[in-house]
Amino acid sequence: MSTSATELAHELASSSVLSFPLDQWYVAALGWELKDKPLGRTLLNKPVVLFRTADGQVAALEDRCCHRALPLSSGTLEERGVRCGYHGLLFNSEGKCLEIPGQEKLPSKAKVPAYHVRERDQIVWIWFGSKAHPEPTCEPPAYEVHSSGKYLFGGDVYHYDAPYQLIHDNLLDLSHLGYVHLRTIGGNASIHMNARMTVESDDTTVRVVRHMPNSAPPPTYTAAYPFKGNVDRWQEIEFHISHLRIWTGAVDVNTDALEDSDRGGFHMRGFHGVTPETETTSHYFWTIATNPVNDPEATLSKVVEQTMMTFDEDKVVIEAQYKNMLRFGARPMVDIHVDVGANRARKIIEQLRHSS
Amino acid sequence: MSTSATELAHELASSSVLSFPLDQWYVAALGWELKDKPLGRTLLNKPVVLFRTADGQVAALEDRCCHRALPLSSGTLEERGVRCGYHGLLFNSEGKCLEIPGQEKLPSKAKVPAYHVRERDQIVWIWFGSKAHPEPTCEPPAYEVHSSGKYLFGGDVYHYDAPYQLIHDNLLDLSHLGYVHLRTIGGNASIHMNARMTVESDDTTVRVVRHMPNSAPPPTYTAAYPFKGNVDRWQEIEFHISHLRIWTGAVDVNTDALEDSDRGGFHMRGFHGVTPETETTSHYFWTIATNPVNDPEATLSKVVEQTMMTFDEDKVVIEAQYKNMLRFGARPMVDIHVDVGANRARKIIEQLRHSS
Amino acid sequence: MSTSATELAHELASSSVLSFPLDQWYVAALGWELKDKPLGRTLLNKPVVLFRTADGQVAALEDRCCHRALPLSSGTLEERGVRCGYHGLLFNSEGKCLEIPGQEKLPSKAKVPAYHVRERDQIVWIWFGSKAHPEPTCEPPAYEVHSSGKYLFGGDVYHYDAPYQLIHDNLLDLSHLGYVHLRTIGGNASIHMNARMTVESDDTTVRVVRHMPNSAPPPTYTAAYPFKGNVDRWQEIEFHISHLRIWTGAVDVNTDALEDSDRGGFHMRGFHGVTPETETTSHYFWTIATNPVNDPEATLSKVVEQTMMTFDEDKVVIEAQYKNMLRFGARPMVDIHVDVGANRARKIIEQLRHSS
Repeated sequence: MSTSATELAHELASSSVLSFPLDQWYVAALGWELKDKPLGRTLLNKPVVLFRTADGQVAALEDRCCHRALPLSSGTLEERGVRCGYHGLLFNSEGKCLEIPGQEKLPSKAKVPAYHVRERDQIVWIWFGSKAHPEPTCEPPAYEVHSSGKYLFGGDVYHYDAPYQLIHDNLLDLSHLGYVHLRTIGGNASIHMNARMTVESDDTTVRVVRHMPNSAPPPTYTAAYPFKGNVDRWQEIEFHISHLRIWTGAVDVNTDALEDSDRGGFHMRGFHGVTPETETTSHYFWTIATNPVNDPEATLSKVVEQTMMTFDEDKVVIEAQYKNMLRFGARPMVDIHVDVGANRARKIIEQLRHSS
Repeated sequence: MSTSATELAHELASSSVLSFPLDQWYVAALGWELKDKPLGRTLLNKPVVLFRTADGQVAALEDRCCHRALPLSSGTLEERGVRCGYHGLLFNSEGKCLEIPGQEKLPSKAKVPAYHVRERDQIVWIWFGSKAHPEPTCEPPAYEVHSSGKYLFGGDVYHYDAPYQLIHDNLLDLSHLGYVHLRTIGGNASIHMNARMTVESDDTTVRVVRHMPNSAPPPTYTAAYPFKGNVDRWQEIEFHISHLRIWTGAVDVNTDALEDSDRGGFHMRGFHGVTPETETTSHYFWTIATNPVNDPEATLSKVVEQTMMTFDEDKVVIEAQYKNMLRFGARPMVDIHVDVGANRARKIIEQLRHSS
Repeated sequence: MSTSATELAHELASSSVLSFPLDQWYVAALGWELKDKPLGRTLLNKPVVLFRTADGQVAALEDRCCHRALPLSSGTLEERGVRCGYHGLLFNSEGKCLEIPGQEKLPSKAKVPAYHVRERDQIVWIWFGSKAHPEPTCEPPAYEVHSSGKYLFGGDVYHYDAPYQLIHDNLLDLSHLGYVHLRTIGGNASIHMNARMTVESDDTTVRVVRHMPNSAPPPTYTAAYPFKGNVDRWQEIEFHISHLRIWTGAVDVNTDALEDSDRGGFHMRGFHGVTPETETTSHYFWTIATNPVNDPEATLSKVVEQTMMTFDEDKVVIEAQYKNMLRFGARPMVDIHVDVGANRARKIIEQLRHSS
């Protein structure tokens, strides 16, 4: 009748298909999460402790003291590394044991595996490689929106009781706005549904673009920016294997071309890191950036707050969807027109899970 | 050592024996539960969405949108049916998809299975048929107590973490009153224990009758009805496969015969729909009806309130019993005299589970 | 990737190795827990109801009425025994059914298994024997600290979501004091780490002794006892299969010998009963006794309160440790110097689990 999350996980684990694409940089944290305490987080089924060293670098170790298996994330940070909260063993950012209290000789086995981790533009990335590529084969992606100085931004980390691909599906389809987000940005279901949409893709990305020329600017836009009247609006969704970028905005009607990546006007740029925690649960790291002209700080606050409400609504829907999928077990689903982008992303993931 | 609920469910699922009798009308809801929102409820392992259409009819569909598996019960009701809360697909009471927002052509596969459901005397019944009888072979039972106008009544729906047959056992045995219901209607353990009891049964029903002639009327009776002194009391329990009817009451001593179904006096008539949710959990739909002469509304309130307290106590006991059965695993039980009625009901269910 | 608690339990259950040493007296309760109500507690996987009879003796039965499996621990105590809260069957302390309400003949099968249980020095012990030794082969251990009149004491019962041996490990190693108990008795990590330590053991006991001669007395000691200046301190840990005794204290420097078991000064004597509930959960029964000279009652309160805070901290660490062990599955652990005592205790338990 139904398939439990555990059964699903076991089934996946015993097959030769990967649960997740490997040889990728995944988001492990937002930079400001790592302060004066170690942070424990399971990523792609690996319990990891993340921390910032005295010189400001980020580090990631297996979240298990090699002595008696206590999570290092329940320990404390020191100048030289992380100290276990049980018997006080101290490890540096490479996982080397530097000290065993009350004992002079350090056994050579006293060490903890380390992960490749990098911070770039305030996003902390972790490399999960295949046996073929245990070392990173590239640098983690840049995200200039955080560093260019053109935008104000805020963000948060959400935990999902749902597999990561259901979050991809949701983000690649903006047609649900009129139903799920009735309370926040609803009321325009038909505008969204009938907008001109193009979908492009290659081996690792999907790009969904929708243009709404000569339309009335929504209230948030008007409040943030001195539009003269009607606007030309765009919504651009870019799917990458471990994250999505969603760029929405508007210019005064018939000024800059919507295709021009240097167009002016009002912008909202979303970063969405989707990292599997396990086969059945996920981390969702998001930031929203904007360039308000009128009352910038207040407008940012409002944009972050509304984004948060919207993502709260998505979380309720996606977790309910997954719970129902478990209740009903594997069953065919009927596709509709809005699924094109999401289905291409699924094909990309599918291919990577089989090829690694 | 112990058997988990899940293991029990799996064991049952893999055997050729049915978990529940099929080809039966089961209670799905009390009529007044279906108002302006869809209601999700799992019945006999099937997740069902129940709703009332614009013309007042009741409808039941599989609780899963055929597009992306969201429960339809988290959607909204409209004039024409239920609309999914994710991408807005609209289904009518037969499960036919009437609309896919932003798309003109409706795929022929866009539909949801419907269940046979009927409302009668404010009870909503659902048919769970075998392959031999997917269509109802009869009408759902009438319950004139709700419709005759002779009674005032109230009721509620309880969820049980226990299999349905433990509720049957409890309702077919009134000897536990003196122990479980010490705080509400206790104190008369010996009266209940020593009352004359007859048990009759056939292939689908069990009838347990107890008479307490020339006894002092309990306080609730005296408050509700102008008895002159001692009374002749009756307790009649009627077990049917999917529900029980319990009729208790009293007449002035030596007036109407206790065997006379048209006897006067004070009556309390209970309806008890017991519907499996899963092999290990149940829904319990109950109403209590009465015909008070003195201060009818206040007496009804008191009767409903006391019934509720009594059923709360039963729930505590039955769930503790089931939890303990799981802890100890399959073990012989010692029968005592009060089990006659319950054991006959178990025999009826047993036979139906093997014969379907 | 990970092993669930259930899987671990099943694995153990299906092997020929015992989960726990048998032919032992285990702590079932602290004497003052048994008053006017029956107490349900699972011990070594057996659900047991404990109660005190009218003559003050303790009794233990299987926690399951033989009629319909209700836990007897949800029943009530009477002069003659425990009465089931469902249909009122009454059982005496041997598990014999004395009464079935409303029925004269008592079926010979109407009985409940009884356990061997003894109260000694306010500790209630239960015998879990092997097939070879279903009857106790000895008396339960005495604990004169509770009965000699030389000490004031208090205590409590804790439930652990962790296997019993992780509690042994913790109690046999006092080196964690400086890290886990930072908030209560920390600050002296180096003193504890560098103290002279001796470890002795035989087939059933381990004894870890640490002496800290000529050291400053800690605040609690000074407050409780009129020390003149520096003290000679001792810490003695005695591991027995089902419990540990930890004796700490101090005398004025260069007065009584630390090896003298009749030494004077200030004493804190801990009793620690560690009884498996299941393979993966435990009961921890503790008392702390002391002989304060200054303001005895207030000092006892403070000692009990600080002990409780300390044990709360241990519980957090041990449960986090076990949870992490489950996440990572079986993995080698690196031993350090402080593990000597704990490892000998593990060897004793290991041997008993295989030999029974």
